[in-house]
Amino acid sequence: MFATPATLAALGDRGRLDAMLRFEVALAEAQAALGLVPAEAARVIAGCADPDAFAIPDLATAAARAGNIAIPFVSALTALVAQRDAAAARYVHWGATSQDVIDTATVLQLRAAVHACRVDLLRLETGLATIVEAHAATVLPGRTWLQHAVPTTLGLKAAGWLTALSAARREVDAAVARAACLQFGGAAGTLASLGGRGLEIAHGMATRLDLRLPALPWHTLRGELAGCGGALGVLCGVLGKLARDLSLMMQTEIAELLPPGGKGQGGSSTMPHKRNPVGCAIALSVATQAPGLVATLMAAMVQEHERGLGGWHAEWQTLPALLRLTAASAAQMAATVDGMEIHPLAMQADLGRTHGLMMAEAVSMELARGIGKEAAHHVLEEASRTALARGVGLEQVLKQDDRVTGALSAEAIAQLMDPAHYLGNAKEFCARALQAWRGGE
Amino acid sequence: MFATPATLAALGDRGRLDAMLRFEVALAEAQAALGLVPAEAARVIAGCADPDAFAIPDLATAAARAGNIAIPFVSALTALVAQRDAAAARYVHWGATSQDVIDTATVLQLRAAVHACRVDLLRLETGLATIVEAHAATVLPGRTWLQHAVPTTLGLKAAGWLTALSAARREVDAAVARAACLQFGGAAGTLASLGGRGLEIAHGMATRLDLRLPALPWHTLRGELAGCGGALGVLCGVLGKLARDLSLMMQTEIAELLPPGGKGQGGSSTMPHKRNPVGCAIALSVATQAPGLVATLMAAMVQEHERGLGGWHAEWQTLPALLRLTAASAAQMAATVDGMEIHPLAMQADLGRTHGLMMAEAVSMELARGIGKEAAHHVLEEASRTALARGVGLEQVLKQDDRVTGALSAEAIAQLMDPAHYLGNAKEFCARALQAWRGGE
Amino acid sequence: MFATPATLAALGDRGRLDAMLRFEVALAEAQAALGLVPAEAARVIAGCADPDAFAIPDLATAAARAGNIAIPFVSALTALVAQRDAAAARYVHWGATSQDVIDTATVLQLRAAVHACRVDLLRLETGLATIVEAHAATVLPGRTWLQHAVPTTLGLKAAGWLTALSAARREVDAAVARAACLQFGGAAGTLASLGGRGLEIAHGMATRLDLRLPALPWHTLRGELAGCGGALGVLCGVLGKLARDLSLMMQTEIAELLPPGGKGQGGSSTMPHKRNPVGCAIALSVATQAPGLVATLMAAMVQEHERGLGGWHAEWQTLPALLRLTAASAAQMAATVDGMEIHPLAMQADLGRTHGLMMAEAVSMELARGIGKEAAHHVLEEASRTALARGVGLEQVLKQDDRVTGALSAEAIAQLMDPAHYLGNAKEFCARALQAWRGGE
Amino acid sequence: MFATPATLAALGDRGRLDAMLRFEVALAEAQAALGLVPAEAARVIAGCADPDAFAIPDLATAAARAGNIAIPFVSALTALVAQRDAAAARYVHWGATSQDVIDTATVLQLRAAVHACRVDLLRLETGLATIVEAHAATVLPGRTWLQHAVPTTLGLKAAGWLTALSAARREVDAAVARAACLQFGGAAGTLASLGGRGLEIAHGMATRLDLRLPALPWHTLRGELAGCGGALGVLCGVLGKLARDLSLMMQTEIAELLPPGGKGQGGSSTMPHKRNPVGCAIALSVATQAPGLVATLMAAMVQEHERGLGGWHAEWQTLPALLRLTAASAAQMAATVDGMEIHPLAMQADLGRTHGLMMAEAVSMELARGIGKEAAHHVLEEASRTALARGVGLEQVLKQDDRVTGALSAEAIAQLMDPAHYLGNAKEFCARALQAWRGGE
Repeated sequence: MFATPATLAALGDRGRLDAMLRFEVALAEAQAALGLVPAEAARVIAGCADPDAFAIPDLATAAARAGNIAIPFVSALTALVAQRDAAAARYVHWGATSQDVIDTATVLQLRAAVHACRVDLLRLETGLATIVEAHAATVLPGRTWLQHAVPTTLGLKAAGWLTALSAARREVDAAVARAACLQFGGAAGTLASLGGRGLEIAHGMATRLDLRLPALPWHTLRGELAGCGGALGVLCGVLGKLARDLSLMMQTEIAELLPPGGKGQGGSSTMPHKRNPVGCAIALSVATQAPGLVATLMAAMVQEHERGLGGWHAEWQTLPALLRLTAASAAQMAATVDGMEIHPLAMQADLGRTHGLMMAEAVSMELARGIGKEAAHHVLEEASRTALARGVGLEQVLKQDDRVTGALSAEAIAQLMDPAHYLGNAKEFCARALQAWRGGE
Repeated sequence: MFATPATLAALGDRGRLDAMLRFEVALAEAQAALGLVPAEAARVIAGCADPDAFAIPDLATAAARAGNIAIPFVSALTALVAQRDAAAARYVHWGATSQDVIDTATVLQLRAAVHACRVDLLRLETGLATIVEAHAATVLPGRTWLQHAVPTTLGLKAAGWLTALSAARREVDAAVARAACLQFGGAAGTLASLGGRGLEIAHGMATRLDLRLPALPWHTLRGELAGCGGALGVLCGVLGKLARDLSLMMQTEIAELLPPGGKGQGGSSTMPHKRNPVGCAIALSVATQAPGLVATLMAAMVQEHERGLGGWHAEWQTLPALLRLTAASAAQMAATVDGMEIHPLAMQADLGRTHGLMMAEAVSMELARGIGKEAAHHVLEEASRTALARGVGLEQVLKQDDRVTGALSAEAIAQLMDPAHYLGNAKEFCARALQAWRGGE
Repeated sequence: MFATPATLAALGDRGRLDAMLRFEVALAEAQAALGLVPAEAARVIAGCADPDAFAIPDLATAAARAGNIAIPFVSALTALVAQRDAAAARYVHWGATSQDVIDTATVLQLRAAVHACRVDLLRLETGLATIVEAHAATVLPGRTWLQHAVPTTLGLKAAGWLTALSAARREVDAAVARAACLQFGGAAGTLASLGGRGLEIAHGMATRLDLRLPALPWHTLRGELAGCGGALGVLCGVLGKLARDLSLMMQTEIAELLPPGGKGQGGSSTMPHKRNPVGCAIALSVATQAPGLVATLMAAMVQEHERGLGGWHAEWQTLPALLRLTAASAAQMAATVDGMEIHPLAMQADLGRTHGLMMAEAVSMELARGIGKEAAHHVLEEASRTALARGVGLEQVLKQDDRVTGALSAEAIAQLMDPAHYLGNAKEFCARALQAWRGGE
Repeated sequence: MFATPATLAALGDRGRLDAMLRFEVALAEAQAALGLVPAEAARVIAGCADPDAFAIPDLATAAARAGNIAIPFVSALTALVAQRDAAAARYVHWGATSQDVIDTATVLQLRAAVHACRVDLLRLETGLATIVEAHAATVLPGRTWLQHAVPTTLGLKAAGWLTALSAARREVDAAVARAACLQFGGAAGTLASLGGRGLEIAHGMATRLDLRLPALPWHTLRGELAGCGGALGVLCGVLGKLARDLSLMMQTEIAELLPPGGKGQGGSSTMPHKRNPVGCAIALSVATQAPGLVATLMAAMVQEHERGLGGWHAEWQTLPALLRLTAASAAQMAATVDGMEIHPLAMQADLGRTHGLMMAEAVSMELARGIGKEAAHHVLEEASRTALARGVGLEQVLKQDDRVTGALSAEAIAQLMDPAHYLGNAKEFCARALQAWRGGE
């Protein structure tokens, strides 16, 4: 529920093993290409790089004992290689340190997980764009402070969600691109054990793994990883805002939207009639959890000297947790937007809930042209109170107020009270949002 | 202590007032340029836009009562304008909502505060670059897990700090550029009260304020602001990592660096000999506080419909607090790096603290060529224990071990034990870091 | 808006100065009582302990330069004392360190701020208890997942808020009582400069200040302070939950509650008819901000050795910020509950929104006695779908379903459909909550 | 590495299943005792309550689809019961809702996990108490701001750790006792489906499960759970402070303590001589992660109406994660304190690192009796600078300073320079801490 299969594949034990093997193969091959390791050894190492050849549960147990996964992993790989070619075994992990393989695997997994999540994000964006187009003129109450304000359109709401979402997605992509750096520094970041050839090897590895070669090893320079955390946190917040809006519109009393129905989706164990917005709940739950995880990634940046004491370890569970949650949120909201029912009639009905009070601003602005802003504001405040107290429509009250009728005809008042005539630039904003999204801006 | 004068100027009451006035002037002028407001009215409004004409404490009191600063601010401005020209007064704030002026002022202040902070950041980067150059060959112990690992150089350490810092600064700049958007949407984001001319006005305002015109109003789309929070959080983390490293090197027992001295800096009220790393303490304090503030900004993103209930308010104190802290950290670390004393002799002395054990990797790697990696690792582990137990140098133990002497000459062993010969690509990494920094990459 | 006058008095510059002066007076008097300081000196010091004798802005400036407030404060106090009695001046702050006076002042201020906040909390609790009593039988829809579930009562809702709130308040009180400890340890926690008499002096100080004397100085043992943070965080969360519920019930479409009205409360600058739940927004904003501040206080606990590097400083702004926010939330919710309008008729009307579907569980449970739980669940699921699809009441559908009528009479069905007959132990829960609250449990 | 076997047992899938079964058995038995359910049905249900009878992976998959674990769990239990006795099956989960069983299971698991952790905490406290006793007179430098301040003792340091730790443990126990409440409210907290007998049933269940019966159901009143989070966060902070201090004392340059040695503990994959403080790193990592998780639990408190949308879900992974981390930290620090080596000679040597400057306060305080505090402070500041500049001992400089020798004899100066004579109440503080700990205060 708090992850997707694709994310679990990328971030799970097998995904991790696979990414670490890719590091070791790239290392051996880059060294072989430079003549530092026999070509045959590199070939054997590459030939052993099969996750299925490893006993994953044993590795996990050994990792818990050793304090990191790299030590038992390198032992296991070395043993596998030695079975095929004892001479090759001595070149496994040559010159690298545990953090080199762990960090490089982390960025490979990060990239894969974000790639997997993007499918759902694009599906969600497409769903939202469809709503922007289809409902650019579907009027409903604009709500501020959870109170009716002035009319807006479902299309404009969706244009906002879409714009925020695609911006957040792009920032995640950019952050991951910045973080997609090879880690290769050896024991303390100098690559000293490689006799001065380290940088050349690193070059070869980065090319093979399609990673950037940073200016220097980043063992304790975690800004790029933490930056991914920040970008993911923003994305979770955007998805949470969408979920909040949808779930409010799905309230029993509003029902402008209905959650996706169907077998097993949001049923209650005791109330047969319930149709719960489960997808929104997951996304809101993720938006509640993400900030704390982002904070952890940022707090963990203060890592001592050439390898920190605890800060690095604090990332290990936190970044994958954040990625899993983000993916779950994206998938749930994509399914929610795809499957939810949209009820324009309910929106229309809601426009009438305040006896026209929602149109007070429209009248006030027009009246202001005649009698000044403050006076108009005052007249409308009074008229609104009267309408509420007497339980009649604002239109009726206004038509009986000399200060109003002195400036506006009955026909003008009627038109000012029509929500569909008071939408300002809503349509243009929708068009701008779609254009920006299509332009990939 | 937790802010700088420049940041306080940008973020304080007067800075806020000034930014809000700029919004109102841009609004009136843009409307006047389109013929929607008399040119004279716009001129009068612009003429009243003087922060010193306002009673700031009264505004603050009224803001607390009204729930936001915009309402009393607009009243006060309207009154000022009315004193000069009653007709002009009706055009003040025409078509805008409170959030329009508050949010636009926020991004103007944000930009100014980050601009002010950049001066200290560049000073700090320059200081670090100087160390990279001057100390590319100054050897000291590389430390992992707070234990001596293998040698590194002060230059390489500084290259890491520099690289991380300039990257974080660039990301803050980029995030602020993305967030530097005009907010102008009226009551619920449609600009309905402006009769369809809202977008044109917005265009004029954005140009006047040198802000981006977003696809649509972002009243409850806070990703860009939260993104600034994330980037600032990363920057605080980078500064905290620098402060942690420096303060560890300034420990009484290590003293490779000394905190800046001088009157009033870090003196103790009871211990006359103390010279405290106050700047580092501030930066570490900031790195402790920033993650929670970033988390708040991200949690606050879940804002309901067209104006949220609490989320927006949660930003009001949090973003300025984060900016003040960031600026303080940058200024303190700039002063620390400028003023601290560097003691290469102490670094040299520290290299000898482990009787040569720090060079075990060097010997192990070389020995591995002869007897294999695991065997070499095992020999060195044994020899290290023997050296520790007997309190003699590792070199002496190795020279008495047949497994070693069979593969390495005494001369070779001696050279392997010299830290200055075991620096790998440290120099190249320094050069790459400087080049990247100078290229503004 | 984000504080109350009483909290500002306790936590502001003058409150801080006053608390620090109380420490110095207690110190001098306790030393005088033991004959370690001339009685006259203690008298003179006590006579100078007047906050109004100090230039607060000058102190603030000097504090920023010195790195803490204690150093310039002690200088200023010493100067004041010296003006009256040069001999007495040498006994000011005798044997204490900066952190002693700062921490002791902090707990005195903390206690005062929480005391001030308690007034609003008790007012709020009394308001909620009144609702529990008055509305124990006021039926409205119970809502889960923002969907109607089964009926509940306003009294039961209020009983929940009351119970959670009084529990959270008691925990804050308990946490403050635990934290209300004298800090007195001298330079590094040994009180070495007092020649072995330190503990006796501490005893006298604790008595004079009505603080607990801890087993040993707590310069870097911050668990009790962080514990206060945790308790305040929980209290903010409870207030936020109350605010969320009230604001949802205040939505235009629901209007079971109306926000307090009246001049200057929640008015909109552009929409004359708006009546915004400002108090709820503040409380929700506080609930959004508090978790990050609590996290900071906990992160700050990792303080090095006898005085930390940054951790202590991270508390300085964070704890007061948290206290101010808590007080604001409590005050706002007290005013909201006191001033809001309760509309039982709207609640009654809401009960009918689902055509009786909300009573499906009631029928299902009764039907289950006859035909088994799963079968009954299945029948009601079907009937609910039919009612929704045909737009008729569930009662009508059930009366036409043989599986139902075979087990239940028409009369029985009608009674099962009455929300007021399906309230279980709601009344007893209300009584238990009131009893527990009155018993101060 | 980030959990202990005992915690995993309590919090894992099997532990969860077991706790949920205990709820269902207690429910059936309490109902049977009241004659609401046939005694035979309750016996059959109890007889099926065997975790090993369930296919745990299938349950997990179904839970992910259903949105919570309770729905598939109840189905599976019902099916099991039906196999034995079709009539009994209809009484499974009678009147309860998903959240009832999930929340009750959560507090049962919470209590079990904290119980498991307590073993390690008590072991750690005992280890610290042993150090307090054994090293009450072992002098070492007190360090403030990571600088030598005045002398302290290892015993006093340990007394501080012990006091903070036992206080934090007691608060966790108290918080768990407060949270150990039965959850039983049915669909919306009224127990309506149980025909008014719900409270009696709840009473029977609470007795059977040894849980408190709260005033009313706490479906969306999460203060007690969040309070456990706060208490656990403080405990993690205390453990982190201990880990920070120990790891600083274990630095290569200080080596007053050595990390536990032995096979597989803290070895480096490339540096054979390394002996890393792995336990401290884990505890510091936990102290970095805990604050964010605590923040999440507090943010999650804002749960809507009778069941929230996302807030409840946000607890599901967060509280177990926090418990696992706490347990890991406690276990690691217990092992570290048990296994670490203490080197009093290194502490003695460190006392001499500042040429006696650390004793400046001692001299200053004594000198102040003669020439006044400020003058003495000034003399010592000068003398300290001279000693540093000339690289000689402070004692030597003082003996050549007339302002000093006028007030103090050479013998007095020498005694003032002895750290062991400047320990104030260190011994009494140790005794007080031990007494308080033994008294279980």
